[in-house]
Amino acid sequence: MSRAKAYAALNAHSELVPYEIERRTPGPDDVQIQILYCGVCHSDLHTARNEWRNTLYPSVPGHEIVGRVVAVGEQVRNFKVGDLAGVGCMVDSCGHCPSCHDGEEQFCDHGFTGTYNGPLHGGENTYGGYAQSIVVKESFVLHIRHHEKDLAGVAPLLCAGITTYSPLSRWGAGPGKKVGIVGLGGLGHMAVKIAHAMGAHVVLFTTSAGKIDDGKCLGADEVCVSTDPEQMARHAGQLDFILNTVAAPHALDPYVELLKRDGTMTLVGAPAESHPAPNVFGLILKRRRIAGSLIGGIRETQEMLDFCAEHGITSDIEQIPMAYINTAYERMLKSDVRYRFVIDMASLA
Amino acid sequence: MSRAKAYAALNAHSELVPYEIERRTPGPDDVQIQILYCGVCHSDLHTARNEWRNTLYPSVPGHEIVGRVVAVGEQVRNFKVGDLAGVGCMVDSCGHCPSCHDGEEQFCDHGFTGTYNGPLHGGENTYGGYAQSIVVKESFVLHIRHHEKDLAGVAPLLCAGITTYSPLSRWGAGPGKKVGIVGLGGLGHMAVKIAHAMGAHVVLFTTSAGKIDDGKCLGADEVCVSTDPEQMARHAGQLDFILNTVAAPHALDPYVELLKRDGTMTLVGAPAESHPAPNVFGLILKRRRIAGSLIGGIRETQEMLDFCAEHGITSDIEQIPMAYINTAYERMLKSDVRYRFVIDMASLA
Repeated sequence: MSRAKAYAALNAHSELVPYEIERRTPGPDDVQIQILYCGVCHSDLHTARNEWRNTLYPSVPGHEIVGRVVAVGEQVRNFKVGDLAGVGCMVDSCGHCPSCHDGEEQFCDHGFTGTYNGPLHGGENTYGGYAQSIVVKESFVLHIRHHEKDLAGVAPLLCAGITTYSPLSRWGAGPGKKVGIVGLGGLGHMAVKIAHAMGAHVVLFTTSAGKIDDGKCLGADEVCVSTDPEQMARHAGQLDFILNTVAAPHALDPYVELLKRDGTMTLVGAPAESHPAPNVFGLILKRRRIAGSLIGGIRETQEMLDFCAEHGITSDIEQIPMAYINTAYERMLKSDVRYRFVIDMASLA
Repeated sequence: MSRAKAYAALNAHSELVPYEIERRTPGPDDVQIQILYCGVCHSDLHTARNEWRNTLYPSVPGHEIVGRVVAVGEQVRNFKVGDLAGVGCMVDSCGHCPSCHDGEEQFCDHGFTGTYNGPLHGGENTYGGYAQSIVVKESFVLHIRHHEKDLAGVAPLLCAGITTYSPLSRWGAGPGKKVGIVGLGGLGHMAVKIAHAMGAHVVLFTTSAGKIDDGKCLGADEVCVSTDPEQMARHAGQLDFILNTVAAPHALDPYVELLKRDGTMTLVGAPAESHPAPNVFGLILKRRRIAGSLIGGIRETQEMLDFCAEHGITSDIEQIPMAYINTAYERMLKSDVRYRFVIDMASLA
């Protein structure tokens, strides 16, 4: 066992506070990582405040982790001390169900073990990346091939990156395809960068006219202010695919109407309350589809990291010290961040 | 021009009454058909009563038409006098948009011309199959290869048959696949027969325990009473595809939960009011999809008719005289029909 400084929520109602946790001694197939940076995901806040009503306390959030390998178990073959390494939303899964067999551990029949607040069904709580170190089974550790100077901006790829890359890849974003991205937050800004790098024609939909320039700088070919019906009407029936990153409840129908025949809108935001019911006619009349998507498997996460390294893609971030986390949460609730907070874990020493 | 006896709704509030219509003299590419049987679809009633608020009066419903060719234009190559022929929901489309080019005329960018109550955007009203005859462009006329004695049961294939065949075919119903059919009405009973003939393992979901035996006779391998949570729970995460034929607003979530990872539920019923909003978590957690589907193209409708002829599939019907139509509508509203009314058009003479 080793001890690590961390930040934890001790209950649903108070701020995160300094806390010390224990990490297991690396087993034969474990990798021990000194955490350098950890991104701040909205799920961290939901969990810290028990908004999904399943939080185990103390809760140490954080599942956008990058760092350096400081120890490896004797059976570890693909990592050595000194390597850069990443950890995303999962640290284990059953390994033998059809989804695990297919490399889609996020859909494990028995529920994957979350990097924090997992496993949900029995077993010990897990502590995430708001900490100096973490010990993770080799098969859930990712290689980081970005330049070391970009490391802070790599951290959000482990959740925001794969959450957007996976559906864009699955639904065929690429040359000749017109892809809509709804929302320009932590997820949306990654989606714009990745869809652009995949070669798609990217149309960003945002409620904020103030984000038009940002959207274009990030890689959008067009930016549509979604509150303007005339701008929306110009895209009616034009899009092959829409990735909707907005978690707040909102009307889906205006976006469904933008899809071509057989087009899909995939939702990756998880609203606390349902979106208004979609109009079935919008689906029937062009055989359109509404789908969901959840992060991505480990193999695909590595594929995404390599794709982003190759295309020079990182997240646009605001680097913060650990002690700033409670202020960061308040700002995140006001969407006052462009586009992701990343904690410099050296600040915890 | 020729005159034909028919039944029409003259306004939204009175019953259908005898009415005489004119049919055009067949042009060079037209086929004139003596109508032998016409199925009664719920859309007929919606239109007769202006429930979709777009009815042009007088309204002659009916788009499940089978009959015999009595005249052909000089450029008609694929039909001759004496042939059996069918007409479904469409009698024309633009012919040059991407959907028409792909043989998906039901999604014509300019809106297909409905067999009745079309075109919606200008042009003359069209009169449907509650009539002695009809004149239709050759490219919208179908060949009927069933035995002549089965003709009455073939009529509903032109709408109920293709509406269910198309999504079952598109989403891969076949050997090794577990397919759920929701609802055992006019559409649902066709879906059970067709999915069974395609080789899928068919699970019928019905609210009526009284339909279990019927469901099994029609080809369901299992029948689940959907109001029983224990029966529903046994199918959780088991189905590759669900075809939901129920138009009445109902909760979709209990069915979404039955889909495997990457499974799709396709809706073919068009509810007057929306279904309750689906839970996005149900979609996200197994990357599931909700889709819509609308009849099928002409090429696929012919494929469906040939498939049904080959497998001996017709609709289970109750044959009625034309004058019974108003009573039939009342019974249809109470789901008091197993499973489709078909009008014997000889009764109109």
